Amino acid sequence: MGTRLATPPADAREAAVCAVDPLAARHAAVRERSVELAAPVSAEDAMLQSMPDASPTKWHLAHTTWFFETFVLSQLRGHRPVDETWQVLFNSYYQAVGPQHARPMRGLLSRPSLADVLDYRAHVDASLHDALASGQLDDALRLRVELGLQHEQQHQELMLTDLLHALSCNPLLPAYRDELPAHGAPAGAMRWQRFDEAIVEVGAAAWPHAAREFAFDSESPRHRALVAAFAIATRPVTCGEYLEFVRDGAYRNAALWLSDGWTRVQAAGWQRPLYWLDEEHAFTLGGAREIDADAPVAHLSYYEADAFARWAGARLPTEHEWERAAQGAAVEGNFVESGRLAPTANAGDGVRQLFGDVWEWTSSAFLPYPGYRPWDGAIGEYNGKFMVGQQVLRGGSCASPRGHLRASYRNFFPPHARWQFSGVRLAKDIA
Amino acid sequence: MGTRLATPPADAREAAVCAVDPLAARHAAVRERSVELAAPVSAEDAMLQSMPDASPTKWHLAHTTWFFETFVLSQLRGHRPVDETWQVLFNSYYQAVGPQHARPMRGLLSRPSLADVLDYRAHVDASLHDALASGQLDDALRLRVELGLQHEQQHQELMLTDLLHALSCNPLLPAYRDELPAHGAPAGAMRWQRFDEAIVEVGAAAWPHAAREFAFDSESPRHRALVAAFAIATRPVTCGEYLEFVRDGAYRNAALWLSDGWTRVQAAGWQRPLYWLDEEHAFTLGGAREIDADAPVAHLSYYEADAFARWAGARLPTEHEWERAAQGAAVEGNFVESGRLAPTANAGDGVRQLFGDVWEWTSSAFLPYPGYRPWDGAIGEYNGKFMVGQQVLRGGSCASPRGHLRASYRNFFPPHARWQFSGVRLAKDIA
Amino acid sequence: MGTRLATPPADAREAAVCAVDPLAARHAAVRERSVELAAPVSAEDAMLQSMPDASPTKWHLAHTTWFFETFVLSQLRGHRPVDETWQVLFNSYYQAVGPQHARPMRGLLSRPSLADVLDYRAHVDASLHDALASGQLDDALRLRVELGLQHEQQHQELMLTDLLHALSCNPLLPAYRDELPAHGAPAGAMRWQRFDEAIVEVGAAAWPHAAREFAFDSESPRHRALVAAFAIATRPVTCGEYLEFVRDGAYRNAALWLSDGWTRVQAAGWQRPLYWLDEEHAFTLGGAREIDADAPVAHLSYYEADAFARWAGARLPTEHEWERAAQGAAVEGNFVESGRLAPTANAGDGVRQLFGDVWEWTSSAFLPYPGYRPWDGAIGEYNGKFMVGQQVLRGGSCASPRGHLRASYRNFFPPHARWQFSGVRLAKDIA
Amino acid sequence: MGTRLATPPADAREAAVCAVDPLAARHAAVRERSVELAAPVSAEDAMLQSMPDASPTKWHLAHTTWFFETFVLSQLRGHRPVDETWQVLFNSYYQAVGPQHARPMRGLLSRPSLADVLDYRAHVDASLHDALASGQLDDALRLRVELGLQHEQQHQELMLTDLLHALSCNPLLPAYRDELPAHGAPAGAMRWQRFDEAIVEVGAAAWPHAAREFAFDSESPRHRALVAAFAIATRPVTCGEYLEFVRDGAYRNAALWLSDGWTRVQAAGWQRPLYWLDEEHAFTLGGAREIDADAPVAHLSYYEADAFARWAGARLPTEHEWERAAQGAAVEGNFVESGRLAPTANAGDGVRQLFGDVWEWTSSAFLPYPGYRPWDGAIGEYNGKFMVGQQVLRGGSCASPRGHLRASYRNFFPPHARWQFSGVRLAKDIA
Repeated sequence: MGTRLATPPADAREAAVCAVDPLAARHAAVRERSVELAAPVSAEDAMLQSMPDASPTKWHLAHTTWFFETFVLSQLRGHRPVDETWQVLFNSYYQAVGPQHARPMRGLLSRPSLADVLDYRAHVDASLHDALASGQLDDALRLRVELGLQHEQQHQELMLTDLLHALSCNPLLPAYRDELPAHGAPAGAMRWQRFDEAIVEVGAAAWPHAAREFAFDSESPRHRALVAAFAIATRPVTCGEYLEFVRDGAYRNAALWLSDGWTRVQAAGWQRPLYWLDEEHAFTLGGAREIDADAPVAHLSYYEADAFARWAGARLPTEHEWERAAQGAAVEGNFVESGRLAPTANAGDGVRQLFGDVWEWTSSAFLPYPGYRPWDGAIGEYNGKFMVGQQVLRGGSCASPRGHLRASYRNFFPPHARWQFSGVRLAKDIA
Repeated sequence: MGTRLATPPADAREAAVCAVDPLAARHAAVRERSVELAAPVSAEDAMLQSMPDASPTKWHLAHTTWFFETFVLSQLRGHRPVDETWQVLFNSYYQAVGPQHARPMRGLLSRPSLADVLDYRAHVDASLHDALASGQLDDALRLRVELGLQHEQQHQELMLTDLLHALSCNPLLPAYRDELPAHGAPAGAMRWQRFDEAIVEVGAAAWPHAAREFAFDSESPRHRALVAAFAIATRPVTCGEYLEFVRDGAYRNAALWLSDGWTRVQAAGWQRPLYWLDEEHAFTLGGAREIDADAPVAHLSYYEADAFARWAGARLPTEHEWERAAQGAAVEGNFVESGRLAPTANAGDGVRQLFGDVWEWTSSAFLPYPGYRPWDGAIGEYNGKFMVGQQVLRGGSCASPRGHLRASYRNFFPPHARWQFSGVRLAKDIA
Repeated sequence: MGTRLATPPADAREAAVCAVDPLAARHAAVRERSVELAAPVSAEDAMLQSMPDASPTKWHLAHTTWFFETFVLSQLRGHRPVDETWQVLFNSYYQAVGPQHARPMRGLLSRPSLADVLDYRAHVDASLHDALASGQLDDALRLRVELGLQHEQQHQELMLTDLLHALSCNPLLPAYRDELPAHGAPAGAMRWQRFDEAIVEVGAAAWPHAAREFAFDSESPRHRALVAAFAIATRPVTCGEYLEFVRDGAYRNAALWLSDGWTRVQAAGWQRPLYWLDEEHAFTLGGAREIDADAPVAHLSYYEADAFARWAGARLPTEHEWERAAQGAAVEGNFVESGRLAPTANAGDGVRQLFGDVWEWTSSAFLPYPGYRPWDGAIGEYNGKFMVGQQVLRGGSCASPRGHLRASYRNFFPPHARWQFSGVRLAKDIA
Repeated sequence: MGTRLATPPADAREAAVCAVDPLAARHAAVRERSVELAAPVSAEDAMLQSMPDASPTKWHLAHTTWFFETFVLSQLRGHRPVDETWQVLFNSYYQAVGPQHARPMRGLLSRPSLADVLDYRAHVDASLHDALASGQLDDALRLRVELGLQHEQQHQELMLTDLLHALSCNPLLPAYRDELPAHGAPAGAMRWQRFDEAIVEVGAAAWPHAAREFAFDSESPRHRALVAAFAIATRPVTCGEYLEFVRDGAYRNAALWLSDGWTRVQAAGWQRPLYWLDEEHAFTLGGAREIDADAPVAHLSYYEADAFARWAGARLPTEHEWERAAQGAAVEGNFVESGRLAPTANAGDGVRQLFGDVWEWTSSAFLPYPGYRPWDGAIGEYNGKFMVGQQVLRGGSCASPRGHLRASYRNFFPPHARWQFSGVRLAKDIA
């Protein structure tokens, strides 16, 4: 983009819109949050793509903007695309929208520059606020704005996890932020919370038809399920506990692993969690730091979580078990807003840390709920087309935005993925 | 193996053992069946390994023998291994037993020869019958014999499907057998059978502790599950129906596919089912033949089965739904004993062809049932370690031995696998 | 690098050194030239690594500096490395010096920043000028400075060709510089210049022992060779001539190609020279432009050069033939200093454009000359260890610095390499 | 091939043809030799293809027959192809003849069977002898017969080396023949033979135009070359000498290796010559045997040969140097006819073992000689299209047929190839 985009509207005008329209206010807040998260990131850092599964910060900033432009603004009469070629560059995987720039080549986009992308954000935000202020958005498009915000919050977490991976590839081990807080509280004992067999309601009513509260299509419909008696751990597994597993030779003991997991351990030479530099230090968003033995262990694949559970004489919870344990619990915990940017022990009682700190691998595959229907149109590609070969994770992490989570929230990754803040909570059968 | 093995005992003696011990009789019959299936296979054919997932016929014949030697005979005092190096060559994946010859290199074993392997079979069979006749096998080892027979039956099916794949790689398109029967009956209309919501019992009681009838550990424990109302098709999808999907451009339409499926379609250049040479001919165990539009379509991946269902406005059944529909049905159908060696239409009424013809992909991932415990020891590796990244198939095929199947039987393959006789039965939600 | 490096010395002081020491003056000029070449490159552009064979601009700027630090400054008493970790980051392939950052991961170095690298350059340059001014460098180290300058000039060319490749991967097709000059003169007819059989002297006397004029070790020793009679074309092959080859279906005609070449053509889907967008447009350092039919064709692999020659009823020259034709010719032509940054026709008479415009593939493999001895120590890795699997190119290109070339200069690349300004000059046998 | 081919003519008739036509006699002898070499090979062994570069014994037997059918018989009026599909199956790489069965899938041809292929041989041989006897073959076709015999002799060597590789992949380490002779004589001292600078004639006059004695097109034209003074070792490097190199840590010392070689050593984990099981035992055509320290070392890549020479303070000879040393020497040595099938020391004086025992890597790339012209037509693909990326080997090995070699013979392989009997003879510069 040779020339910079037109000046966005004055802040005063935006403030006025936000004062009268809660959606506009939320939009402004969420969008601003992305830019804040990117603030410690130089234009050069924002280029980094260290693996095909991850994307550069700049791409996240642009793609989330593309989402609003494509699914909201471009529906309005008279909208002109900011740049037609960007429709391709910043489409992630929406086949129905059109072609996409090859995912592994996102790191080769030195142009548009970070400054251009920030201009693009400002321009699209201003247009959207104008549209909100002038009442151009009907209910359907306002729902699209809500969806765009949820989408943006997901990418806020990925911005951090993708960047952590990218920085870990630099032998200088540079930090995203230097001033991360010191270690947290002691972990407290792990106990078992028992649940009897019951028919429970799980999932969320379908948004927006059947519920006003947002939930992804994959969380619906809310439905009944028979859940056998089980017990679940009161807190996630800690780094100290995981270190015992490592020191017990688990990474050299085939008997502990799923077949695919053992193949991966050997092919990739895994010896400990991703980012553990040795048994005492790990790379974090704050650079190389001592491992906090009390903190929940993170950056595990499903294979490692499953092997740990087997070694510990337990198993992973199903997603229904997890959700049952979480129903009624407040959505509180160590989220991105805490600024810790690392899982941290919590010395409380009872079942704790279900939300925040680490995503918890469940033994459930990411499959449609009974009666599931994807959203109509291109946004139906959001979740439904990934329903094979992935495992469900629950609860959110230290990099998740607080307002984005709920008990029915289903995150998913392939079983070898390690670059998220993914950890373990144990479960077991009871007679 | 330089020298041939010692002569096996006379047939007369074996007949005497079989007359008094049903297990011995069953053993003799199943083992003989494998050799019969290999009869049309030359020593050269028996070498073929056309992909890492498949094994040569000779290897199947040896590995099933190794199973009896390792898990039964080697437990007996005084047993000497037939050849110690064969312990490695013919171990498939039992880490607890010891190392394995690399799977993709099974096709490089010109020695031992097919004749040597047949001698090995005769030798181990004779030893086993001696042990049975002399009462050397306690109950635990007799159960191992039973397990070995179930294992052998699984490999009988793989012998045929692996060989079909191997022969398909020869531009001469040679047949396994030339005299396969002609096409079958018309397919009859596909209707929907409805089931109301219910709590159903699924799975099988754990063999051998909780049940005398054999079932694999992965089928247990028998447990209750809440199954919502659904409808299931009265017969599998036919080649003619699938051809419409092909002709509708489905293999060029991303909207129909799971994301991983679309990636695979494009990377592998899939255009129609495996073994369809064009839209009118397919390669079969009888060589190249005209496609029977009425026969159940086979050699589909999960991705294709799922995409077809989406195209047809339906979905795949869950394994619970399938099992509910199959409960009470007789285990009858077109199995390997029919000698057709190809799926074939059946003009009957009601829900039919649940057993035989084609394995039916379900939308369920192969995961542990609540309370699942793998068998103890090395044979615990049989199923449990594959419980990630695989989808369940149900019902058996035209290459399955009749006595091997039941309603609770769970077969599993990764979603891209196409070389089994794998097809589709549709299901749908009902309000 | 958290803190910026100390301020470099004032320009006035440097000017004084240069006035009295020609080596210092040359050093200042060559080093400044690299920075000028990088001037149109943003910090984001300078990150790009589009393939393992290419490096980011920033890495070139740092690595050439590392060369002076490692091979000159670090030999001085009291030298402290600017940053020890950079010794690894910016080592290219000198095993004797120590480990290297993995080549394909050079694009993941967002830190040090471009600004830090420019500081590093200034700091090392200042130290070097101090050392020159104070007479700290003995003759051996002054020779190392000379070598460092030759090395830097090589990287100046690679900076341009690597960047061209990287920018070509951006669908926006951004230009390195927008204001490139328009097309050049008509090409003039191609004629044949004949040479009789002779024993000729080729190569260069070994620098620095046997000659004061710089030459790489691989050019020595100067030696006699018997060169049979041959004819050589008076100018390189043009884009227009190459287009005829393309239009004649050459890329679909196996008979024209070396076996490895044909394999590559098919595997990579080559249809025309790298950077030709179609038969009329090509991507260049000035962005997408119309192809100049009269300009020498560039960005050919050896396979393409060889196939073209076969199609034209000719062959490629050997490096001895080329050198014989070039002996006595002035080293003049279209080099980087012309600012054209593209091969351009030259309407002159006689054998022309031997130097500049395009590197000319020869049929000679890059092998040691009789009596060849690599330089001693780590710099002996400069050329000698690449003497297998590479073909010699001669003459220099529109991206080569003028003062860097001579008739004996041997460039080399593997036969599939296309991203250099590599073209063809024909030769033929004469009876 | 469903039905066996028609009965070949009686032996008596063939004997009559051979008695009057030396070409027929030679044809009968060479063809018979291939079958003899295959005699210890079972039908199962003859299927083995252990890497894409190697072919099954059965394929060699068929392909050499295809050569006579395609290039001789099919030129005759009334010839009907034995089986049209075999034209594709057994074409190696002749693009001008038509498509080829994919090379890496040659091991999947269980049909035609070995027996069918031997029938095919008999049938084609009979037809050829009929054609010779009846005078149907003009001079041009008689030359093709001669070429076919040379071609067959090359494949006789490959049959052995490919089979050695295949058998080495079987953990049982089976032997091709059990009764190989014991070790040979002591090696005798290695001395240097000096040659002064000279203009020498190298190569062979072009067959059949310019010479009646057969030579491959790549050996011609005979031409003059200036060869500087050099010294060459009087015998090849022995296993004992090579063991010192291994024990000196050479495989862990980057400084000794070409860059591509070092990359290969690390990627492939090379630690010693191919087939050395440890430092005392090697796999051979006679199975696992003790290494004979006096025997010439074999199964080295060019990289290893080059690294050894550097370690020894010497270098490899050029092909001109080698040829100069070999001119005038009798073509005698340890060839396949000796039945040793392994390199063996020879205690003689002077320059010895130039022919037989091991192919000797030269530092020369396989490039066209000045004035080279490939043969016309499809057989022009025989050598010319491989003239890039390969190194020349000279002299022949213990697996080469005696009558196949001469001083000008140029064998060639890529620098990483190790599965031939390839060894080292040292050379050095002399002032």
